[in-house]
Amino acid sequence: MGAAVTDVAVLGASGYAGGELVRLLAQHPGVQITHLASLGSAGRTLADVHPHLAGTPLAATELASVEDLEAVTAAAGFVFCALPNGSSVSIVPHLVEAGLRVVDLAGDFRLPAEAYPEWYGFEHPAPAWLDRAVYGLPELFADRIAGAELVANPGCYPTPVALGLAPLLALGLIAPGPILVDGKTGLSGAGRSASEAGLFTATEESIRPYRVPRHQHTPEMERSLTLATDQEAQVLFVPHLVPTVRGVLTTCYAPMTGNDTSEELTSVLADVYASSPFVRVLPPGGMVDSKRVRGSNTVELQVVADPRTGQAIVVGALDNLVKGAAGQAVQNMNLMLGLDEAAGLPATGLYP
Amino acid sequence: MGAAVTDVAVLGASGYAGGELVRLLAQHPGVQITHLASLGSAGRTLADVHPHLAGTPLAATELASVEDLEAVTAAAGFVFCALPNGSSVSIVPHLVEAGLRVVDLAGDFRLPAEAYPEWYGFEHPAPAWLDRAVYGLPELFADRIAGAELVANPGCYPTPVALGLAPLLALGLIAPGPILVDGKTGLSGAGRSASEAGLFTATEESIRPYRVPRHQHTPEMERSLTLATDQEAQVLFVPHLVPTVRGVLTTCYAPMTGNDTSEELTSVLADVYASSPFVRVLPPGGMVDSKRVRGSNTVELQVVADPRTGQAIVVGALDNLVKGAAGQAVQNMNLMLGLDEAAGLPATGLYP
Amino acid sequence: MGAAVTDVAVLGASGYAGGELVRLLAQHPGVQITHLASLGSAGRTLADVHPHLAGTPLAATELASVEDLEAVTAAAGFVFCALPNGSSVSIVPHLVEAGLRVVDLAGDFRLPAEAYPEWYGFEHPAPAWLDRAVYGLPELFADRIAGAELVANPGCYPTPVALGLAPLLALGLIAPGPILVDGKTGLSGAGRSASEAGLFTATEESIRPYRVPRHQHTPEMERSLTLATDQEAQVLFVPHLVPTVRGVLTTCYAPMTGNDTSEELTSVLADVYASSPFVRVLPPGGMVDSKRVRGSNTVELQVVADPRTGQAIVVGALDNLVKGAAGQAVQNMNLMLGLDEAAGLPATGLYP
Amino acid sequence: MGAAVTDVAVLGASGYAGGELVRLLAQHPGVQITHLASLGSAGRTLADVHPHLAGTPLAATELASVEDLEAVTAAAGFVFCALPNGSSVSIVPHLVEAGLRVVDLAGDFRLPAEAYPEWYGFEHPAPAWLDRAVYGLPELFADRIAGAELVANPGCYPTPVALGLAPLLALGLIAPGPILVDGKTGLSGAGRSASEAGLFTATEESIRPYRVPRHQHTPEMERSLTLATDQEAQVLFVPHLVPTVRGVLTTCYAPMTGNDTSEELTSVLADVYASSPFVRVLPPGGMVDSKRVRGSNTVELQVVADPRTGQAIVVGALDNLVKGAAGQAVQNMNLMLGLDEAAGLPATGLYP
Repeated sequence: MGAAVTDVAVLGASGYAGGELVRLLAQHPGVQITHLASLGSAGRTLADVHPHLAGTPLAATELASVEDLEAVTAAAGFVFCALPNGSSVSIVPHLVEAGLRVVDLAGDFRLPAEAYPEWYGFEHPAPAWLDRAVYGLPELFADRIAGAELVANPGCYPTPVALGLAPLLALGLIAPGPILVDGKTGLSGAGRSASEAGLFTATEESIRPYRVPRHQHTPEMERSLTLATDQEAQVLFVPHLVPTVRGVLTTCYAPMTGNDTSEELTSVLADVYASSPFVRVLPPGGMVDSKRVRGSNTVELQVVADPRTGQAIVVGALDNLVKGAAGQAVQNMNLMLGLDEAAGLPATGLYP
Repeated sequence: MGAAVTDVAVLGASGYAGGELVRLLAQHPGVQITHLASLGSAGRTLADVHPHLAGTPLAATELASVEDLEAVTAAAGFVFCALPNGSSVSIVPHLVEAGLRVVDLAGDFRLPAEAYPEWYGFEHPAPAWLDRAVYGLPELFADRIAGAELVANPGCYPTPVALGLAPLLALGLIAPGPILVDGKTGLSGAGRSASEAGLFTATEESIRPYRVPRHQHTPEMERSLTLATDQEAQVLFVPHLVPTVRGVLTTCYAPMTGNDTSEELTSVLADVYASSPFVRVLPPGGMVDSKRVRGSNTVELQVVADPRTGQAIVVGALDNLVKGAAGQAVQNMNLMLGLDEAAGLPATGLYP
Repeated sequence: MGAAVTDVAVLGASGYAGGELVRLLAQHPGVQITHLASLGSAGRTLADVHPHLAGTPLAATELASVEDLEAVTAAAGFVFCALPNGSSVSIVPHLVEAGLRVVDLAGDFRLPAEAYPEWYGFEHPAPAWLDRAVYGLPELFADRIAGAELVANPGCYPTPVALGLAPLLALGLIAPGPILVDGKTGLSGAGRSASEAGLFTATEESIRPYRVPRHQHTPEMERSLTLATDQEAQVLFVPHLVPTVRGVLTTCYAPMTGNDTSEELTSVLADVYASSPFVRVLPPGGMVDSKRVRGSNTVELQVVADPRTGQAIVVGALDNLVKGAAGQAVQNMNLMLGLDEAAGLPATGLYP
Repeated sequence: MGAAVTDVAVLGASGYAGGELVRLLAQHPGVQITHLASLGSAGRTLADVHPHLAGTPLAATELASVEDLEAVTAAAGFVFCALPNGSSVSIVPHLVEAGLRVVDLAGDFRLPAEAYPEWYGFEHPAPAWLDRAVYGLPELFADRIAGAELVANPGCYPTPVALGLAPLLALGLIAPGPILVDGKTGLSGAGRSASEAGLFTATEESIRPYRVPRHQHTPEMERSLTLATDQEAQVLFVPHLVPTVRGVLTTCYAPMTGNDTSEELTSVLADVYASSPFVRVLPPGGMVDSKRVRGSNTVELQVVADPRTGQAIVVGALDNLVKGAAGQAVQNMNLMLGLDEAAGLPATGLYP
């Protein structure tokens, strides 16, 4: 005898994260998709928007308009909101007030109100909701997530950074700053809108930084470390584009407070995540590879102590569309619904 | 009436850097290739080893054995030695003593003797020669290079690091350490030997660090900064492989000593390299792109001040086989022979 | 109440197809892996050989030697043999005679005996077994497969060719030859052995034909068409390497016998495969894309009539490691075991 | 003392072919660029539009409007017109009538008038000019090109097809049809306009046909063969996109009329092109590779006879932006100006 199946809606189904949500939810044993909506592709079918999903039962479903909130509340009890930054904030509060539970994949509920003008370029229109949202990093905040009405799903870059640094910072093994985070990612993070900078011709053989040093994930990294450790951390974050479709790899440089070895630091992380189904801590000598986690909800972590310079090097990798977006959102949903944290989520990726 | 044409030899012609040397020298107005040798492909023709060079006049030339040093001295007055690390050291001294001038592209003459066991894994067998070699970064050490009998051509990663940091360090605008250098590069730096890790299947969609924190370019970065500024610098260097063939991009994080702005730091670099034909300092807001310099001898540099964390971010990019190897070697030769520094070298790459 | 779970063995588990078999079988509801063996990696663990499978329950399993056939028969009732061409033939007969049922992924049991010297370069040592093997293309030969003791799993290229052409040939809409097949594929088909030609440096930006016109899939295409239509077909096949990891796309040019339109030809294919879970026939105007089926067991087919030249153009695409190897093998197993043909197999791939 | 330097204009300088024209002409010994114009980027500088050309002397030149034809005639005696198909036809006649000589890189002057509605989708507005234009394939029509006032530069696909097939067809070694041409190319042929289909995310791991069987290069292939052999040829052409930036590879299947061997067919091509600086005919057993000619003006050709099916397989490869566009245009200019055919053109590409 199974539990009741939850009806879920996906808003923003036409984007890359939306497509991944549909792919994952379609094979999830505890839920069924009952509503799909899109900002720019309302009226088209799922298979038209995502031809690779032509084989799913939902293929012929027409996407509704995101603006029709009554249709959402009529159809679903749980909502994934995968809209662009700045678009969720006007929609999510209505849904929560109507009694739905929501995981929001944008940045609209991740920061304190005062950070939005500087990092996102807009004044937050509903600051009271920022306190009602729980920051949804399951490995660190499972208890708060379980009871939340609204979960702010973390950004792709902050996820491996927080998972790798928080345990070391909490134990005082590294100083709270300045922590330097050098990020590398592929093109899917930029979405599927046409742009000259995203063309294959402009991307193959190109390695380039962007938004230096103004990337909006900077304050999110600082905040997630504070939430996890009650310390004020200071992070400098420089992201780079490299020619991959998926994959985030973050290399963090943090000052060590003592003389811990790579083995000692590794064992701290290994202990903290011993029972986490989606965190893989590599033994000393192992090297993280973003390709190994592609298509999966797994994060790989590695830590190396450099006694020569007194720095700890903490490397993390994930698939930005899965553990960095849709997969983590489903993981949050699992916790919110009291399901097995790993339900419907692949721990193994597609290789090669 | 032109100057006399110099006869040059290329040892290690069958590798990627060797192929680039032949491509560049074949169109150089002041030299002619009179000898080609290889460690593993002696007896094969140039076109057999490098099919893309089938259209050059040298295509049918048979590669000699590297070990036949008499053939080198009989054929050439100038030698490029593009052999693997550890192989040059037993060959180059004989050539110099025979009166030839040499640019060595390996790491064999770049460091003080005491650094070799730790970073290269061998005891240097000819330490006296380390003082006779000049470190060949043309933009910083042109005078010393001009008169040198033996030039140690810099590594691919240290080149943009030294060019970007040395002027700021010399003026005391950044502290000498700890400077964190996060490097990204493609696969051609690993050479053309077959390996599973270098397969297309293992590389596409893969972002991964390697040799953390033991890469042999670390002490070279420190030494080049010391040579240029007479200060002891401390560098932590973490390199990463990304799915490109060519291209190095280095992101350096250095503590600022004052409150200089991005504009002020940029103008320092712009002034220093105003007359350098191969250094392009981007204005504030510009973003370095390794693809823009592919196939050229150009380095792109960019500097951003982050007052929030007190760090200067210095980014540099080059083509590892040209400015990071063969092109810089030719530039050194030009200086050594009293030719125009830019003779035979492309300032413009192949895009897209 | 579920059916009994079948114990299966995978021989050749360390290759790419072997890795995919483990990935698919690990999530298959009707079987369990009880034996893993390798030719060259015996003694290593699964996670050591396939780090991306570190999250599966089998991760710590040590690979046995392929030569230990007693261990196979002791552990399993069903065997996947994913060994190189020429290696299966000395192993598979022993297993079948011991009562095990086998799907062989190599070319060892796909052709008549007389074809082996010319196309595979060896005299077939067990020709009597060729008649006992059933050619395992499920959409065309499901009945024969269901009762087979030994199934020869088709090659990656012949699969979309036979699926696209056989229905048209059977109805006499195209002539049996000469049919020209132009194939394109990525690097995973070449396996994971190190080779200079397979390096990222040699592959990015490279489009190149190979084995023209001697590829061993040529007679397999002819034979599969004959098996399906009782006509002697003549095929010329030219394969090409392009810079992808996965994906086969075949473009077939066949002389039309009449004046059928694209719509008419398309409807023939659509009817034939209406109930096949893994064949997607695109409507006229649709264009096949290998990326859309990556990671899935789906084949995309498209047919265009060109009245100007009297040719039918039949395009097909699949993931060479799934529908072109491991997935199709599992589909065959499902039929052999009387399970749902689609059990444990993904119809939806990973996009982008 | 050298010949006078010719003043040249480039219309359409902001596209990829325009950028290549500037790169090649900037290092050409016999010409100087005196005018640059663009359809959509007038008023921007060359370096702004093509940052990789920031190191050329023309970097700060402002692009004029293409519509200002008086500026062209005032500045130059020779014009390269690299505008989109359909845009040249309203501009080029004015320039020629003003006494300038023109190489047009679009398809506007390549076909007979009656072909335009079907293949280009427009009625040709100036059909009288079609007879005045010479089809500019230098290796086949050098004499006619030398005296031309207007040269229609061939398309990227038709170039290797005509070069490979024409000599065999002229000697009656292959039949005039149906000849099947299977083309593969990268993304730069689609230009630099933003499109979702051209994004890196949509292109990596994608192999897909397009415009089947309606590509506008089909009648151009037929016409070029007729021009070269006085025979009516019939071609079916199916192009495919693969994940490269540069490179065209065409695989032609033509019925043989006799029993010639690969060696005999190869020697026909080798003889015809013995003195052509940019055609490389591979010996039997050699395999064409588009990567080997990247960045060069070289075409690689290979021919294989298949006695089993009676087909000749003729493979050709080139860089679509060089020999397939800008390089061939410069080669035509060289012939028109009486310069060395190879002046300013690279025979050697960039590898790896």
